[in-house]
Amino acid sequence: MTAQATSEEHAHGYITDKAKYLNRMRRIEGQARGVTKMVDDEKYCIDILTQISALTSALQAVAVGLLDDHLKHCVLDAARMDSADAEEKIKEASDAIARLVRS
Amino acid sequence: MTAQATSEEHAHGYITDKAKYLNRMRRIEGQARGVTKMVDDEKYCIDILTQISALTSALQAVAVGLLDDHLKHCVLDAARMDSADAEEKIKEASDAIARLVRS
Amino acid sequence: MTAQATSEEHAHGYITDKAKYLNRMRRIEGQARGVTKMVDDEKYCIDILTQISALTSALQAVAVGLLDDHLKHCVLDAARMDSADAEEKIKEASDAIARLVRS
Amino acid sequence: MTAQATSEEHAHGYITDKAKYLNRMRRIEGQARGVTKMVDDEKYCIDILTQISALTSALQAVAVGLLDDHLKHCVLDAARMDSADAEEKIKEASDAIARLVRS
Repeated sequence: MTAQATSEEHAHGYITDKAKYLNRMRRIEGQARGVTKMVDDEKYCIDILTQISALTSALQAVAVGLLDDHLKHCVLDAARMDSADAEEKIKEASDAIARLVRS
Repeated sequence: MTAQATSEEHAHGYITDKAKYLNRMRRIEGQARGVTKMVDDEKYCIDILTQISALTSALQAVAVGLLDDHLKHCVLDAARMDSADAEEKIKEASDAIARLVRS
Repeated sequence: MTAQATSEEHAHGYITDKAKYLNRMRRIEGQARGVTKMVDDEKYCIDILTQISALTSALQAVAVGLLDDHLKHCVLDAARMDSADAEEKIKEASDAIARLVRS
Repeated sequence: MTAQATSEEHAHGYITDKAKYLNRMRRIEGQARGVTKMVDDEKYCIDILTQISALTSALQAVAVGLLDDHLKHCVLDAARMDSADAEEKIKEASDAIARLVRS
């Protein structure tokens, strides 16, 4: 989880926001540990459900942000270069959207 | 995250499945760390989204399980004892369901 | 879709709010026809998606309301009478919640 | 709801699949009327919820399909022409995705 291993790999294009996504994912990890502790401490079920809803919303916000970055970078770049590649990337993105909407 | 601190507190009724929920939540924590690492390693965006969808589904399955236990234990117990309390518990449960459906 | 055919059948318990649910469903039917018309008129895709999101939220609100009524009436009544029947009804409700959360 | 009124308007690009979307939306309208009738006939609540889940899934499938078409046509066309316009269109699409994921 250190950054140096990947410092030379910028291929997937969302590096400008990487710190923001890492912060959000670390907060999500903390929320997941919080839910585990609530279960272990046998907190009131409804309070645990409230935390799980918050965690799910936070994850979906990360997913929507990543997808937006993906469309902006990978898909636009592909569109400017190569139609077949752009269509393949849009198909992947649409499949990912379908999974998110259903999950 | 050890069990002894709460070993005398059985009030919230889902103790029989506690080990199962703790296992599921620990797997979810691992999945969240995996997503963080994928972001840090700048893995392909669509692959990260696939993992987030799987994580969201796992969280929703925990939520639906906890809600089922809550209805079976707290709500049924309340219904047998005291109508006003049962109605209050059902209101709480319905509010939690609304949050889950929208999250 | 007239009321008289069912005026003697009160078994499912949500009759007190029936007019409210019928109004909401008729508005939803109108929203669905509106989406069809937008497709037929080739309106801007994003505007159609906005209407579909509103329609989905309206349907989920109906579902959460019906579930709340079901818990308040069928499940509480069963709980006061017969444990086995109450548990069966809670199982059904939990399965319905799982389908809603995933849909 | 007739096609001739719009036969000369191809601007939004999904005309090739228009018949498919109209068929799906008309089926959805029928499903909505079916739910209204189930409420009016006071059918068992859980059965109504099952139909609402099916209807919600059908609507989401239409939304995901329209979004896919939008990305393929409007966004790719814009990308080939004009970066600023493509970015605006992607922002709109991402906002629509966020609404769908949360609805």
